[in-house]
Amino acid sequence: MQRVCFLARVRPDRLAEYRAAHREVWPEMTAALREAGWANYTIFLDDDGLVIGYLETDDFDVARQRMEQSGVNTSWQARMAPFFAGIGDQRPDEGFRQITEIFHLD
Amino acid sequence: MQRVCFLARVRPDRLAEYRAAHREVWPEMTAALREAGWANYTIFLDDDGLVIGYLETDDFDVARQRMEQSGVNTSWQARMAPFFAGIGDQRPDEGFRQITEIFHLD
Repeated sequence: MQRVCFLARVRPDRLAEYRAAHREVWPEMTAALREAGWANYTIFLDDDGLVIGYLETDDFDVARQRMEQSGVNTSWQARMAPFFAGIGDQRPDEGFRQITEIFHLD
Repeated sequence: MQRVCFLARVRPDRLAEYRAAHREVWPEMTAALREAGWANYTIFLDDDGLVIGYLETDDFDVARQRMEQSGVNTSWQARMAPFFAGIGDQRPDEGFRQITEIFHLD
């Protein structure tokens, strides 16, 4: 089992919308995540727009590929895209950057 | 059960030492964390020094207070203190800052 942590960055002027969208994630999207092997998945959002994702999965490469092939995920990501700080922004380096585990206690 | 995510920042010139220390955490320290209620606790470290902690606990205020009263934790934190970027550093705002959960999938 892998524990995965990733970072992303939401535009400071779109935080409220990003937060609201995550209070009403489509049931088809959560079902797709489960089927793709995403478990114990939590998203945290800082007031300055730093997004931290944590999940557990058997194989993150496989889990991510499965989501990339999912139609509902394509629609969801298209809806989320305007909220993210992308290239040209002050922090383009933090677009879904994966972070290395250095310690674990069960 | 609470899911907790916190941020801290390690000095870029001390990353290797911080990493090495977490390959050999004292057994007394891991025992103290368990007894204090810290479960499924993982630390992630980015190459630029961003530390992300994730844990699950019944009550984080209680779990944190228990660690604050632990002698082994006092010794451990004294050993870690020189590695952290503190006040006067470029990112003093990120000293063990807790981040808000906005989404969870079991």
